[in-house]
Amino acid sequence: MRVSRLMLVTLRDDPAEAEIASHKLLLRAGYMRRLAPGIFAYLPLLWRVLQKVSAIVREEMAAVDALETLLPQLQPADLWRRSGRWDGYTAGEGIMFHLVDRQERSLGLGPTHEEVVTELAADLLRSYRQLPVCLYQIQTKFRDEIRPRFGLMRGREFIMKDAYSFHADEACLQRTYAAMDRAYRRIFERCGLRAVAVEADSGAIGGSASQEFMVTAEAGEDLILASPDGRYAANQERAVSLPAASVPLEAGPCRSLATPGQSSIEDLCTAHGFDPTQTLKVLLLLARFAAAPPRGVLVCLRGDQQLNDVKLANAVTARCSDAGALLEIVPLQAEHLATDLSGDAGSVPFGFLGPHLEDPPLRNGDARAVAVPLLRLVDASAAELETFVCGANRIDAHLVGARWGELCPLPEVVDLRAAQPGERCLHDPSQRLEAARGIEVGHIFQLGRKYSEALEARFTNEAGSDEALWMGCYGIGVSRLAQAAVEQHHDADGIRWPVAIAPYTVIIVIASSQDAVQVALAEQLYGRLLRAGIDVLLDDRPERAGVKFKDADLIGIPWRLVVGRAAGDGKVELVDRSGGTGKRELTADAALEELVQSLGLQVASP
Amino acid sequence: MRVSRLMLVTLRDDPAEAEIASHKLLLRAGYMRRLAPGIFAYLPLLWRVLQKVSAIVREEMAAVDALETLLPQLQPADLWRRSGRWDGYTAGEGIMFHLVDRQERSLGLGPTHEEVVTELAADLLRSYRQLPVCLYQIQTKFRDEIRPRFGLMRGREFIMKDAYSFHADEACLQRTYAAMDRAYRRIFERCGLRAVAVEADSGAIGGSASQEFMVTAEAGEDLILASPDGRYAANQERAVSLPAASVPLEAGPCRSLATPGQSSIEDLCTAHGFDPTQTLKVLLLLARFAAAPPRGVLVCLRGDQQLNDVKLANAVTARCSDAGALLEIVPLQAEHLATDLSGDAGSVPFGFLGPHLEDPPLRNGDARAVAVPLLRLVDASAAELETFVCGANRIDAHLVGARWGELCPLPEVVDLRAAQPGERCLHDPSQRLEAARGIEVGHIFQLGRKYSEALEARFTNEAGSDEALWMGCYGIGVSRLAQAAVEQHHDADGIRWPVAIAPYTVIIVIASSQDAVQVALAEQLYGRLLRAGIDVLLDDRPERAGVKFKDADLIGIPWRLVVGRAAGDGKVELVDRSGGTGKRELTADAALEELVQSLGLQVASP
Repeated sequence: MRVSRLMLVTLRDDPAEAEIASHKLLLRAGYMRRLAPGIFAYLPLLWRVLQKVSAIVREEMAAVDALETLLPQLQPADLWRRSGRWDGYTAGEGIMFHLVDRQERSLGLGPTHEEVVTELAADLLRSYRQLPVCLYQIQTKFRDEIRPRFGLMRGREFIMKDAYSFHADEACLQRTYAAMDRAYRRIFERCGLRAVAVEADSGAIGGSASQEFMVTAEAGEDLILASPDGRYAANQERAVSLPAASVPLEAGPCRSLATPGQSSIEDLCTAHGFDPTQTLKVLLLLARFAAAPPRGVLVCLRGDQQLNDVKLANAVTARCSDAGALLEIVPLQAEHLATDLSGDAGSVPFGFLGPHLEDPPLRNGDARAVAVPLLRLVDASAAELETFVCGANRIDAHLVGARWGELCPLPEVVDLRAAQPGERCLHDPSQRLEAARGIEVGHIFQLGRKYSEALEARFTNEAGSDEALWMGCYGIGVSRLAQAAVEQHHDADGIRWPVAIAPYTVIIVIASSQDAVQVALAEQLYGRLLRAGIDVLLDDRPERAGVKFKDADLIGIPWRLVVGRAAGDGKVELVDRSGGTGKRELTADAALEELVQSLGLQVASP
Repeated sequence: MRVSRLMLVTLRDDPAEAEIASHKLLLRAGYMRRLAPGIFAYLPLLWRVLQKVSAIVREEMAAVDALETLLPQLQPADLWRRSGRWDGYTAGEGIMFHLVDRQERSLGLGPTHEEVVTELAADLLRSYRQLPVCLYQIQTKFRDEIRPRFGLMRGREFIMKDAYSFHADEACLQRTYAAMDRAYRRIFERCGLRAVAVEADSGAIGGSASQEFMVTAEAGEDLILASPDGRYAANQERAVSLPAASVPLEAGPCRSLATPGQSSIEDLCTAHGFDPTQTLKVLLLLARFAAAPPRGVLVCLRGDQQLNDVKLANAVTARCSDAGALLEIVPLQAEHLATDLSGDAGSVPFGFLGPHLEDPPLRNGDARAVAVPLLRLVDASAAELETFVCGANRIDAHLVGARWGELCPLPEVVDLRAAQPGERCLHDPSQRLEAARGIEVGHIFQLGRKYSEALEARFTNEAGSDEALWMGCYGIGVSRLAQAAVEQHHDADGIRWPVAIAPYTVIIVIASSQDAVQVALAEQLYGRLLRAGIDVLLDDRPERAGVKFKDADLIGIPWRLVVGRAAGDGKVELVDRSGGTGKRELTADAALEELVQSLGLQVASP
């Protein structure tokens, strides 16, 4: 391809809309343009990258016997209502775009396809003889992101590879899950990415086990916690650790302490010399649901610990399964007592809460606001304290030396704390968690029977009885992966694409387009590289050599062949964009030979 | 691929949802499943067909220097408002799905991409040096069809190839349009389709010239009118012809005729012995617009002629350019006079209208219903009548011997009649139009500057001044093409795919899966065909041979290799699904040699 015909427009300055390097570079180097927030046109160079990534994905999917298909993007609301996800995906913070068609039927724009594929399986799969089977597609997905940002990293329209497997039993699901794990590692390696597999939260997709693949990069939105020995890595949403040991509290009976205005743990400890590990952090929250009135939640953590919102949401969802989708959990404010819980605002001593807080005295003035006791949960860090300091449930007063069992019964113990870098690992307490930032590019799930039971996708097993299918699902963010590659592979001059996913492998730059000798040699090399099957660009634009070199570096083609003054002697300059072999003057034949060999191809005759 | 792993489910009976052969066959043969009206899941077999069609399209697009890209499916309403198409595409009969995002911004789901690509061109194209350039994409498009039907023929979600070219002048646009015409003919030919190019109406896309490509088939929704010499072919929406000569009316002055209850041309002619060609058909219609009050339209045709709705809509749109999008044209009823035109219902003598009808006496009681004179148009067939019979604008009365100029001025003459099969051709009146039905699979347009002017996509020309880009656009219905191929290539037993777009080229059927000799030979042939690069299916299912033969015919694989009783002698049966070479027993080697040669490949050793 000739650069003059490529509709290439590069920008000198960073666009104001971009915050991170890869987003800036993809815009500056003419790979994409923004049409609306989180919505991009993929220009020809980017499309080639995406096609190369897709080709690698297709090869590896075929290698694990997955069948390519294409499922609808418009999905009937009824299907999502049957799986119980319509409300959660469309109300409140729900991220599914949705519309009403001319027949007044609601449709969602697919962010994911568990419902559709399960409906299809219910139709097509009848017998264990058809199993296992795996379908996948590479398709544009939609998410109405609250804050679209970072270009393709968190867009509202993006390309995913999503695969769905069906099995007669859990062991078979686990084998496919393991095969997908290996396929994913091969895909990221072949794309030239450094990626790590981490334990992950299954989120709105659900299921029993899931694992994310993270491309490590400073600009990553996810925090990864990993052990130095490499045996443990998890997304912070999911990570576990041993908290620091607590400082024992001086023995003695439980006593009241005047703590005027000391409503934070920091103020309390400063005023009285307590260590935060001796205190209890008591949080009063409000959970809202799609199909039930809001419910108060009382959470106890050790004073030095932070709440992990994802763990809490999972714990609440599991304990309120009849309430419909969990829409949000927010700190409970005085005004909620009046509006949502119909309680008495004056009765809750915010800032001085203790675990023995009584259920707020609810009024039943509103038929919908049924009196429901607080959901009480305690993290292990707090449950293990023998004695502790906590609020007295009276303004300006705390208790010192309180004990579980005496003060109140121990609530249900659940892992709710956020693991932190530097904490000891569970599998080997001599190791301490290290932090890294990552970009999630893949996520694989053992779904189990969540969807097949909800949508009645059943088969006849070998024994002749009827049961629900076992399912797995496996996603790769194809467009996100392309940008993650840029985030991991760039320098001050521009992108440095890994060869396997570069839009073109070689760029021939004619230093002076007025020089007939240079043009002739460049054209000859261009033809030979094309015939050798190499993806080659010829920069034939009537621009200064410096402009063309800058553009070649910016768009990040792995190899640059400069045809300049030495063309008369049949010599060219070969430049390795990765910096590996530097800049060398070679005869045209030698340069061609080296290129072709390094790319594993056959050299073409002149 | 082994059929046992293909998730193949064929149906014995025609599904109730399908009306035409191709729709029935694609469902029965396991190519697709309906998720919602007009929305289908493309199963693995169909996806392979679509990929083969797409590969041919990509090769031919590359051959005309078009660059592949991918543009957003979600498109901002503002962009469509700037081109003036938002209302026409979303209000009334508008076919664009649209939604409101969480920021309360309206977005449409792209049925086409003129706006998006023109916006991109405005951003990227600055100089004539960058021109011409052509971008294309293969993408799922959306249309909220009023009556989705015929499977992929008129779906609500479907795959299109759409290309857009940009030029410095009209001559260059015409060259690319001609190159696309040739590329389209190659594409359809390579896909094994009989397709004809016909003159077409440009519809909601607009522009100066357009041509459709029709796959001829009885089930086609479009009527094509063509001359036997092949020099003229057009969609009936657009077709022109010479109407039959009119029978001259007896000479004499204009006189009134009592015609009690004779409100139709048929009744009038029967009662008084007139020929319909002597009469005037006067139609009173109401046009509704997005940005203006409705307007009355008076149309005169010769009595034997039919109105062509598409021609009328184009004529009205061109003459009411300030009224915003034309939403619909409906026969004007008495009640419209009161509601829409604020006129006097009693003043219009429906059934006895003459061209000299005065503008309905409008009342200005409603501020929006401004008094606008009727838009008066006459078709050439009526304009050419020297004298004619027409309504007297009084109930139960006509005029005989009326003349243009005497009765009233001749309205603007516009081609408004529907050409009919059997009428004489304009280019050669000795030829008569023949009718055929077709399925539109492609449409190419010279857009001119309609979009570039509306969206200010301008460039600097060679003389250094600024002007709007010239544009063309070029569509192929990829998923519709796949179904059109089935409509054109099937028999009572099932589909007969053209080799180039068949999901697999060869199917090996093991007559008895219990027979080790048959299995061994089949597996050997399967491996050799795979290594030769042939797309081959192995039907390894433990089914009866008859079931497998029926399925092979139904799914329509071009070549069937049956490994049966003669396997012990190294012999197989080779069956050509198209029926060309019949059913023959050959040695395995000879069968392989013949297959490989007929497909133009190299034979692989055992």
